[in-house]
Amino acid sequence: MSGSGAPLFDDAFRARLETLIRWRRDVRRFKPDPIAPDLVEDLLRLAALAPSVGLSQPWRFVSVDDPARRAAVRRNFEAANAEALQACPDERKALYAKLKLAGLDEAPRHLALFAEAQPEQGHGLGRRTMPETVAYSAVMAAHTLWLAARAYGIGIGWVSILDPAAIAEALDVPSAWLFIGYFCLGYPQAEDDIPDLERRGWERRREADKVALLQR
Amino acid sequence: MSGSGAPLFDDAFRARLETLIRWRRDVRRFKPDPIAPDLVEDLLRLAALAPSVGLSQPWRFVSVDDPARRAAVRRNFEAANAEALQACPDERKALYAKLKLAGLDEAPRHLALFAEAQPEQGHGLGRRTMPETVAYSAVMAAHTLWLAARAYGIGIGWVSILDPAAIAEALDVPSAWLFIGYFCLGYPQAEDDIPDLERRGWERRREADKVALLQR
Repeated sequence: MSGSGAPLFDDAFRARLETLIRWRRDVRRFKPDPIAPDLVEDLLRLAALAPSVGLSQPWRFVSVDDPARRAAVRRNFEAANAEALQACPDERKALYAKLKLAGLDEAPRHLALFAEAQPEQGHGLGRRTMPETVAYSAVMAAHTLWLAARAYGIGIGWVSILDPAAIAEALDVPSAWLFIGYFCLGYPQAEDDIPDLERRGWERRREADKVALLQR
Repeated sequence: MSGSGAPLFDDAFRARLETLIRWRRDVRRFKPDPIAPDLVEDLLRLAALAPSVGLSQPWRFVSVDDPARRAAVRRNFEAANAEALQACPDERKALYAKLKLAGLDEAPRHLALFAEAQPEQGHGLGRRTMPETVAYSAVMAAHTLWLAARAYGIGIGWVSILDPAAIAEALDVPSAWLFIGYFCLGYPQAEDDIPDLERRGWERRREADKVALLQR
């Protein structure tokens, strides 16, 4: 479809979209309720509409369901998190130790995300000087999934405190796949429009005008 | 706000959100009409609500307005694009040469996006084993901007056919900033739900189930 069939979005939709963006959270506390498999498929279908360099769709999702593999991911997280705690400045160690940084035990669905480093699809367009754009494309698929999930009441937590090479090995993926992130999905125990790290005193969110916007 | 004030999204909103995702395009053909500055500020305000590693908000937007700087970006693109054309397989050269891969001349607003490589904000949380998460955070800010812009009828084109180091130099940004992408903003000449690269025969978009979803 093109041209005259183009949708118009109104103020009411834009207000709801802003609400969605404001209430999307990085969720680490999940209810045990399962997510219907069809719903996860729907979310992945939407994620496949994300922008990608050269229309290469280089995202590769891995549904991690096997208890032994989940246990390997958990060990990986625990080791990386223990090292991160050690590396914390002394005055932040106690606070860091109290943070809950992953919901690996509770989340009913786990998705690992990789990017195909040199996808055939797209015929290389747009990534010659910036090969990192395949990773960036996968990130936009994850972000699409994240927003769409929230619209269905599902929370997602992005776990990055992991050794990427060990994750790729634990999940036995093709060697050309680049690990992007590990996502816990489930119904959140609570909803909020303030980031968890802000409510727990780790950091506070700045308004856009406090973040540099240079003029050149 | 938290708890009982949490918004519920209904089927009607979800259908509109899917429409938004389907009609977001990488736009390279713009009308000359300017965008109200307040609107760009509003979009940047929404972008600042994007997820970021450790709540670090490491995105750094640069509004590129100076004609001499825009000319430098254009020369950069032309050189990188000429090299990309040369690197094309022979059977694709003619098609590549016909593609319009940037709207640098027509787009009324230009935003360059960088990521602060080692932001103070966030106190390093979440990026020790994966420092690339600062770039990924900036990408999610760009994607938030992109979706929100489309809801206001504004098109965005991501230009990645650029030499990143030369862009950073041309825009005279701090040396710790990592170049993520260059964005052209404007009202699109046409709307479509099919990617431009598909309509012009370069590549076709695959449904989610044609992209690998591994089970592990």
